[in-house]
Amino acid sequence: MGNQVKRIGVLTSGGDAPGMNAAVRAVVRTAVNRGIECIGIRRGWNGLINHDFVPMDSNSVSHIIDKGGTMLYTARSEAFMTPEGREKAIATCKLLGLDGIVAIGGDGTFRGALALSRQVAQQGETLQMVGVPATIDNDVGCSNYTIGFDTACNTAIECVDKLRDTMQSHERCSVVEVMGRRAGYLALYVGISVGATAVLIPERPVDFDRDVVEKIRQARLSGTTHYMVVVAEGAGSAVDIGKRIHEELGIDPRVTVLGHIQRGGSPSARDRETASRMGYEAVQSLAEGRGNRIICTQDGKVVDLDMEEALAMTKVFDMERYRVLEATTTGAGD
Amino acid sequence: MGNQVKRIGVLTSGGDAPGMNAAVRAVVRTAVNRGIECIGIRRGWNGLINHDFVPMDSNSVSHIIDKGGTMLYTARSEAFMTPEGREKAIATCKLLGLDGIVAIGGDGTFRGALALSRQVAQQGETLQMVGVPATIDNDVGCSNYTIGFDTACNTAIECVDKLRDTMQSHERCSVVEVMGRRAGYLALYVGISVGATAVLIPERPVDFDRDVVEKIRQARLSGTTHYMVVVAEGAGSAVDIGKRIHEELGIDPRVTVLGHIQRGGSPSARDRETASRMGYEAVQSLAEGRGNRIICTQDGKVVDLDMEEALAMTKVFDMERYRVLEATTTGAGD
Amino acid sequence: MGNQVKRIGVLTSGGDAPGMNAAVRAVVRTAVNRGIECIGIRRGWNGLINHDFVPMDSNSVSHIIDKGGTMLYTARSEAFMTPEGREKAIATCKLLGLDGIVAIGGDGTFRGALALSRQVAQQGETLQMVGVPATIDNDVGCSNYTIGFDTACNTAIECVDKLRDTMQSHERCSVVEVMGRRAGYLALYVGISVGATAVLIPERPVDFDRDVVEKIRQARLSGTTHYMVVVAEGAGSAVDIGKRIHEELGIDPRVTVLGHIQRGGSPSARDRETASRMGYEAVQSLAEGRGNRIICTQDGKVVDLDMEEALAMTKVFDMERYRVLEATTTGAGD
Amino acid sequence: MGNQVKRIGVLTSGGDAPGMNAAVRAVVRTAVNRGIECIGIRRGWNGLINHDFVPMDSNSVSHIIDKGGTMLYTARSEAFMTPEGREKAIATCKLLGLDGIVAIGGDGTFRGALALSRQVAQQGETLQMVGVPATIDNDVGCSNYTIGFDTACNTAIECVDKLRDTMQSHERCSVVEVMGRRAGYLALYVGISVGATAVLIPERPVDFDRDVVEKIRQARLSGTTHYMVVVAEGAGSAVDIGKRIHEELGIDPRVTVLGHIQRGGSPSARDRETASRMGYEAVQSLAEGRGNRIICTQDGKVVDLDMEEALAMTKVFDMERYRVLEATTTGAGD
Repeated sequence: MGNQVKRIGVLTSGGDAPGMNAAVRAVVRTAVNRGIECIGIRRGWNGLINHDFVPMDSNSVSHIIDKGGTMLYTARSEAFMTPEGREKAIATCKLLGLDGIVAIGGDGTFRGALALSRQVAQQGETLQMVGVPATIDNDVGCSNYTIGFDTACNTAIECVDKLRDTMQSHERCSVVEVMGRRAGYLALYVGISVGATAVLIPERPVDFDRDVVEKIRQARLSGTTHYMVVVAEGAGSAVDIGKRIHEELGIDPRVTVLGHIQRGGSPSARDRETASRMGYEAVQSLAEGRGNRIICTQDGKVVDLDMEEALAMTKVFDMERYRVLEATTTGAGD
Repeated sequence: MGNQVKRIGVLTSGGDAPGMNAAVRAVVRTAVNRGIECIGIRRGWNGLINHDFVPMDSNSVSHIIDKGGTMLYTARSEAFMTPEGREKAIATCKLLGLDGIVAIGGDGTFRGALALSRQVAQQGETLQMVGVPATIDNDVGCSNYTIGFDTACNTAIECVDKLRDTMQSHERCSVVEVMGRRAGYLALYVGISVGATAVLIPERPVDFDRDVVEKIRQARLSGTTHYMVVVAEGAGSAVDIGKRIHEELGIDPRVTVLGHIQRGGSPSARDRETASRMGYEAVQSLAEGRGNRIICTQDGKVVDLDMEEALAMTKVFDMERYRVLEATTTGAGD
Repeated sequence: MGNQVKRIGVLTSGGDAPGMNAAVRAVVRTAVNRGIECIGIRRGWNGLINHDFVPMDSNSVSHIIDKGGTMLYTARSEAFMTPEGREKAIATCKLLGLDGIVAIGGDGTFRGALALSRQVAQQGETLQMVGVPATIDNDVGCSNYTIGFDTACNTAIECVDKLRDTMQSHERCSVVEVMGRRAGYLALYVGISVGATAVLIPERPVDFDRDVVEKIRQARLSGTTHYMVVVAEGAGSAVDIGKRIHEELGIDPRVTVLGHIQRGGSPSARDRETASRMGYEAVQSLAEGRGNRIICTQDGKVVDLDMEEALAMTKVFDMERYRVLEATTTGAGD
Repeated sequence: MGNQVKRIGVLTSGGDAPGMNAAVRAVVRTAVNRGIECIGIRRGWNGLINHDFVPMDSNSVSHIIDKGGTMLYTARSEAFMTPEGREKAIATCKLLGLDGIVAIGGDGTFRGALALSRQVAQQGETLQMVGVPATIDNDVGCSNYTIGFDTACNTAIECVDKLRDTMQSHERCSVVEVMGRRAGYLALYVGISVGATAVLIPERPVDFDRDVVEKIRQARLSGTTHYMVVVAEGAGSAVDIGKRIHEELGIDPRVTVLGHIQRGGSPSARDRETASRMGYEAVQSLAEGRGNRIICTQDGKVVDLDMEEALAMTKVFDMERYRVLEATTTGAGD
């Protein structure tokens, strides 16, 4: 853990996202091409605690850019949340002689990275951490975009397009629950993209009568006989919403919970390209001596922000998109 | 309703299936090219009861061969199950001067067709019915293959392939419920195609310990850390099976119910081609004076069978496929 | 053609792009929801010359958000490039009482719009034009992003992923030509996303020995036995490059020209969402009295720029992406 | 090379096809589960000549059932066509103690297998060969179906569906060349599935005026403004046909050669399932002492035929499918 960067670790942590492999690949390849050694740490922070790692070269990451999931595995680590757990991790970093770590994941991953970095600093040492945002929820405060979001959107709209085929044939109402416990990005993008009758998101308090009942009524009056309601899991349960629609409108909706399907699949071009660029920039940051950064997209550009400042940032949900949804779907079919 | 075929109706009934549009298109085009007029009856048998129909020409069915669902809409008709309901339908057929009807759907659709045909016969008249099997469950006794099954298989394996990405990354067990209340074709084909650890189907009594617990154990002993269990809805609820796996093995499975997604989507080449061929043969049958037939695939060929005999046939589930599953997945990863 | 906006036209022109339908839909729906009438002008500018148009309401644009191509058809109009042709177009606009036109297409489309607007102004009248950038080449100077680019990227990487399967099995070199006569965006994004051995783009002078021969050699030395060369059509012909590779390296590449496949297909989530937002903003601009604008994405935001200024802008190709490509693929397999 | 089967080899040869991996997996897994050792021979028959092989266990074939291409690589072997080359191969078989070989490929592969088997027999020994038909052309005389055909059909119709989007928008004619040097199965299935205006196949002598010019004319008269012509490579070059259409009809077609894209991609459910079943049956045949067989589908069933007899069989092209094409597309849009 010295000044010049000779050897780095790379890990994926938290929920997996399509494009994580592309990010790992970019980190390893960029490092190797700069003469920096690279160690793959497996199963998130647990890998540092359990001595679960593997040296990587350029060929270790061949044939993975088009694969979903993460070849390094991922996990949430409770042990790492304790100082004792992190102490074991620090020992592993020392043993391996790591100068820095690229941690690919979401806010939780980055908070872990910061805690580790501080604990190392308290010991008078330095371990440079760089975060790369990857989560299908797009809910990392400092970055406009997170790896995996685009693939999840495309997976969800493909599923909803299929649902619409059968809903239209049977003239039914469909309620679809997409991922997003704290964030409605996925639900809103999907809703706009499929021409949903109604979209419920955690960022906007739900008025069931205005946001669901009235929307379905207006669609029916325009001649439409099928309706698509998209719900972010953080805005309510699709099953409950289906029941309430049945109670209030006397129609019998079909409920689908897309679930973990949204997490998998070959990453889209956007996710592969963004992940490649972010992984590349992560190594650039480390190599140029900038540690404790998060690689973000800001105003369409890839930048690196101070990790602590970045973690304090919150993203303002752009309500204009909700107006786009309303302007393009209210009182009409899809 | 005379001897020579001048005008026919076409309808889709029961649950929709990808390829129904291709079948409708083939019926209309083949009829028109033989100088037979064609009336589209909408919303299944209800269309005959409610005077809900539309004349069709070759252009009416352009741009639909690649679309899921059915442009004629579909519904289950309770009214049609009564003699009074069918009497109304007969009146519509007389009004329209229909010589025959092509009914696209499953066993229930064909039983309706037969009841209608008999009621007409009791009145000393003739209305020629031809059935075309279309259901994603592949559960029509007389036909090896039903339109929509292949697309549903492909949709399901694409979903399960995505699930596997994330299950593998998190080293988890996944339980997936696919459609099939009475038939395990979909579950077994999907299970073989994704290398499932275990597959539960209604045709084979489930011994939970042998068929699930032991399969997962053997996979674990072979070094695998993720497991895919595929369940036909008729063989049990995925949620219940997930709970039981948790109780007996202490692992925490993720449950996904694929649901109506399996019904939609652009039909596969096989479903488009089969539907085109079956729709073509249905009109050939009618035009050549063979009524009350079901168009079936038997031993790889398209044939037409007497409707009554065909409805009495049952399909023997080919257990060899279950042995293929066991031989290729037991004691191994996917 | 007065001050207050009561009736607008919408058209698609030039090469089609996936998402054009979503843009048309957003224009029509937003207009209708603001009480503005909307006329669909067909076959690009020709529609104004040939009186080829259709009134549109909310239902006119149902079921199109997920469809490739453009329901309004598109064409290149030579007549419109002459003052006489535009005079006919102006007469149609007067006849229809159009206050503005939303023109969806590329630079050529916008130059046509500007010429029309000026010719109207010379007559002391006003016709407000708003451009919406849609082209798979992403080669509109004023906008970071153009509708259709993302879908084309995804289509291309899906094709190249398939090519790679067979190239890998046969240990062959593949040369793939993607669209982009003047711009290498598509080629470079695709190249990064598939881990191409070499990428040739018009923005960077090609040194065949350095950019192709040496890249393949380095890949071979790293143990790789298949190579993927991606060529933008503006940087050379894939057939010629294939021949030259054969001459200089003695291997026998397989050449694929992806061609018009890249233009079609159901638009991706990103293209549907962007098109919806841009179509919405186009109508906002017109309704708020801002004419002669192009709706652009700048730094991740949707803005409207003065059409004349926007047309004068050129986009600087970001060579950092080329470095990302080199850092992640040099001396390695995909 | 004795009586009881203890160790077998498996190889893929000739052009690759999606599903070859699933077949290899089924062979290895079924063998291992029956206590038979399995050796993977790489790069087709060349592997036997060049000592290029690898022992395989159940885990060797994990994660490949959903992958296109072949993990064993494939090649055409000129050396193997000579007695000297085969003598080297026989020596390798003796060294390895192989009792049998499962050869996955097309007619050429099986003729190689038969030649090898005979040469061994001349030496008073036995080497049991079992062939598994895998080629996207579906041109193996003894088997109704060959692994890979279904995936290739689906790939081709997805491409043509995309082409149609842009052809429809521009009101153009499209000429698409699909694979099939000697066989028109792919072209005809694709043509039926996309509603092609015209399909040219090697099995049916082409009368250009009747089969192309007149078909386009009839489509135009029905109101259609875009036309799709599908050509099997064995029935003529798409470029030439495009030129001739231009000469005779004055329209300017766009030509696309799908090429090797058709060979790749994740195998469809049908190809995975069929490959699993055929691979399983191949090992059953060997284990039960039936050598020199080809595993075929006949009348919808999987059977094993004597290799020599099977190689003498020819498949009669079912012209009924051409009539289905004509009945469903003549004088109409897609």
